[in-house]
Amino acid sequence: MATEPENRKVSTDPYKGVRDFYPEDMYVQNYIFSIMRKAVESFGYEEYTASILEPAELYKSKTSEEIVNEQTYSFKDRGDREVTLRPEMTPTVARMVAGKRRELAFPLRWYSIPNVFRYEKPQRGRLREHFQLNVDLFGIESLWGEVEIISLAHSLLKAFGAKDDAFIIKINNRKILNYLFDEVFKISKTDARTLTRLIDKKNKVPAEEFQSKVEAILGEQTFLFLNIMTAENVESFKKVVENSISRDILGIKETEEIMSHLEGLGITNVVLDLTLARGFDYYTGIVFEIFDTHDDNNRSVFGGGRYDDLLSVFGTDKVPAIGFGMGDVTTRDFLETHELLPEYLSKTDLVLCVIEEKAVEFALHLAADLRDEGINVAVDTSGRKIGQQIKAADDHHVAYIIAIGEEEMAHKVYTLKELGSGTETSHKTEHAIAEEIKAHA
Amino acid sequence: MATEPENRKVSTDPYKGVRDFYPEDMYVQNYIFSIMRKAVESFGYEEYTASILEPAELYKSKTSEEIVNEQTYSFKDRGDREVTLRPEMTPTVARMVAGKRRELAFPLRWYSIPNVFRYEKPQRGRLREHFQLNVDLFGIESLWGEVEIISLAHSLLKAFGAKDDAFIIKINNRKILNYLFDEVFKISKTDARTLTRLIDKKNKVPAEEFQSKVEAILGEQTFLFLNIMTAENVESFKKVVENSISRDILGIKETEEIMSHLEGLGITNVVLDLTLARGFDYYTGIVFEIFDTHDDNNRSVFGGGRYDDLLSVFGTDKVPAIGFGMGDVTTRDFLETHELLPEYLSKTDLVLCVIEEKAVEFALHLAADLRDEGINVAVDTSGRKIGQQIKAADDHHVAYIIAIGEEEMAHKVYTLKELGSGTETSHKTEHAIAEEIKAHA
Repeated sequence: MATEPENRKVSTDPYKGVRDFYPEDMYVQNYIFSIMRKAVESFGYEEYTASILEPAELYKSKTSEEIVNEQTYSFKDRGDREVTLRPEMTPTVARMVAGKRRELAFPLRWYSIPNVFRYEKPQRGRLREHFQLNVDLFGIESLWGEVEIISLAHSLLKAFGAKDDAFIIKINNRKILNYLFDEVFKISKTDARTLTRLIDKKNKVPAEEFQSKVEAILGEQTFLFLNIMTAENVESFKKVVENSISRDILGIKETEEIMSHLEGLGITNVVLDLTLARGFDYYTGIVFEIFDTHDDNNRSVFGGGRYDDLLSVFGTDKVPAIGFGMGDVTTRDFLETHELLPEYLSKTDLVLCVIEEKAVEFALHLAADLRDEGINVAVDTSGRKIGQQIKAADDHHVAYIIAIGEEEMAHKVYTLKELGSGTETSHKTEHAIAEEIKAHA
Repeated sequence: MATEPENRKVSTDPYKGVRDFYPEDMYVQNYIFSIMRKAVESFGYEEYTASILEPAELYKSKTSEEIVNEQTYSFKDRGDREVTLRPEMTPTVARMVAGKRRELAFPLRWYSIPNVFRYEKPQRGRLREHFQLNVDLFGIESLWGEVEIISLAHSLLKAFGAKDDAFIIKINNRKILNYLFDEVFKISKTDARTLTRLIDKKNKVPAEEFQSKVEAILGEQTFLFLNIMTAENVESFKKVVENSISRDILGIKETEEIMSHLEGLGITNVVLDLTLARGFDYYTGIVFEIFDTHDDNNRSVFGGGRYDDLLSVFGTDKVPAIGFGMGDVTTRDFLETHELLPEYLSKTDLVLCVIEEKAVEFALHLAADLRDEGINVAVDTSGRKIGQQIKAADDHHVAYIIAIGEEEMAHKVYTLKELGSGTETSHKTEHAIAEEIKAHA
């Protein structure tokens, strides 16, 4: 067990593209998670989770091919099983629901805050590991599913203190896209698939490149297509395509109904966006995404959609499903942009600083009694000078200290010092100390 | 996107040796974690975490060789980096502390509840993925570190409702073992290492096999060794070896002092156990383990020890450290054995059952108002018969329902039904409903 030679020292860096959470980072993370939990539980959602290790076959059908082929961490275990670190939670929750299809009572409202893994180049808002609130509603076939999920997404941002003008909810419907491809443009399934992926990447390629790629598929219909893509509500969409489309097609009717119900619930920052595609193949109806409206962070924060067919890959009956995933990194960017994150505060209320060695045992007993009063208290047993002990407490953002020495042991009168203001108060019992701290919490 | 043919359906089983947490499992897990958090935060510990992905080199020095070679999930990423799914948290926390050695204020009290991975045969109390409360105290060189960490371990079990006679705290000191090997038995470092591993596996091999393996190393000193191994306190240990040992050697003095301080704090279920070795090589002083005393679960629940040299592998100054890891699986086994787990309770307080489609919008508004009153409420928009809706609420262990139909819309009087007892109460406002529910929570 000799010390390693200097030249072989181990690096203190984490693995590339993942994060260490020091207590101040963890505080922000826990704040975000606690608001998420509170908001979704208020809508009756119950928490579940699963391992990050999944059989690789789970991702080989229905999920986005790009992700399976290029963006997952997959490896063979020592028993030659193919294992994948989950890149998203939806296939896992579908697997769990399918596995207990007959025992579970529907409608089922489930949430989880798993970490998910993607092997991609680290960049703003995209890391190799991130956490993602997943909210899913199973068993509601009607549009009330969409109404609930989108109003829950809206409530979530409100719970973080966001104003309605801080974000916009863009919705689209795969059924409208499918109608356009099949009935208006009359293109093949392969072309439709290529076009969907083009739409999804629209903002990532130059406008000219986008247009020329669309022309290769749609020819002279390109002009109509580009006009459709800029429609911002059902009315303008209808206007553009009024010669080519029936007003009663399902996708349109659904989208109008959802927007009208949301308006009834007071949610008005909703727009139709026909360019909204989302990456996964499993969506079957409405897809939606929340966009930050702030100039400094003008991007997608989170989104989701309906995926009624996903459970069929497990051989079970069809189970209607709709949900969304809200990542911690994009959420944190949104909250930072709108100055909605709280300041760090230690969960430790009080440090007992120990003036001399013989006071340690006394301080430990006092600490135990204060814990019984509901106070979180650390005892500094480092033996360092009292000034250093107080500085350490302050560096940890602990609000209060009490110095314990011969005086305190003899008279049992304690001076509680609030480090921020320097205010000192004198107390004779643990209960009085606890009351003083709680009164200012 | 056609349905997969039946013969290619995907399995709903999780990966071998890991767990799915359905809401009722999650409830137990969250209960265990919440008690852990509360207990360690009451001692002034702050939460941190890190990714499960770590550079493989982190485990190549100092940690147990058996684990590195046979029991980790390691693979090469697409950039040819060797990655390991952390098998334990101690190297990670050491890395993080070493990485910010100069910025962090000591003493440092940190905790985390990470999941850790070991590729081993699944069996009772041993899974391939489990969670583990990790508690570490950095910067205390004196025995007050041991006193705090062991009394915190004791407090943790008390916080779960365990009585003192439900468990026993066994302690040993690597310094005593080292003294015996070097000064009493005078054996080589290699033999000492072999003997330590033999001791660690003592209860897993037949007594005769153990004795013959010891004899191969110690020869005629075997009788003395076996006597030493049965000593249950410092006095009996001294008696056995009084001709061979100085009463003043550090390991003995330390152990006596710690046991005496713990007794002073009212912790008396502590015994010396010289057969306690623990698997990791990085321990430098006291090691301890909590054992369940119940006949049905007579095994180690959790443990830890002092590891003052671990940070030196990062090339930083020595940082004294002591801590423990408490696994969720063994903790749950302990709590189940002693009947200390709570019954499942849904976090959803109330389900609004909807008698007819036209009442949905009304119910959604009522639900929103009830959420503002702090009530967690789901609306059943499935459109199924009222009886089925009530059964689903009951299956989810939700305590209350209100049925909403024409009557309720017209008169705004709501009948709150408690499903357990069948008791019905009548209320005219959301506030009154909320008060009734909170009064019985």
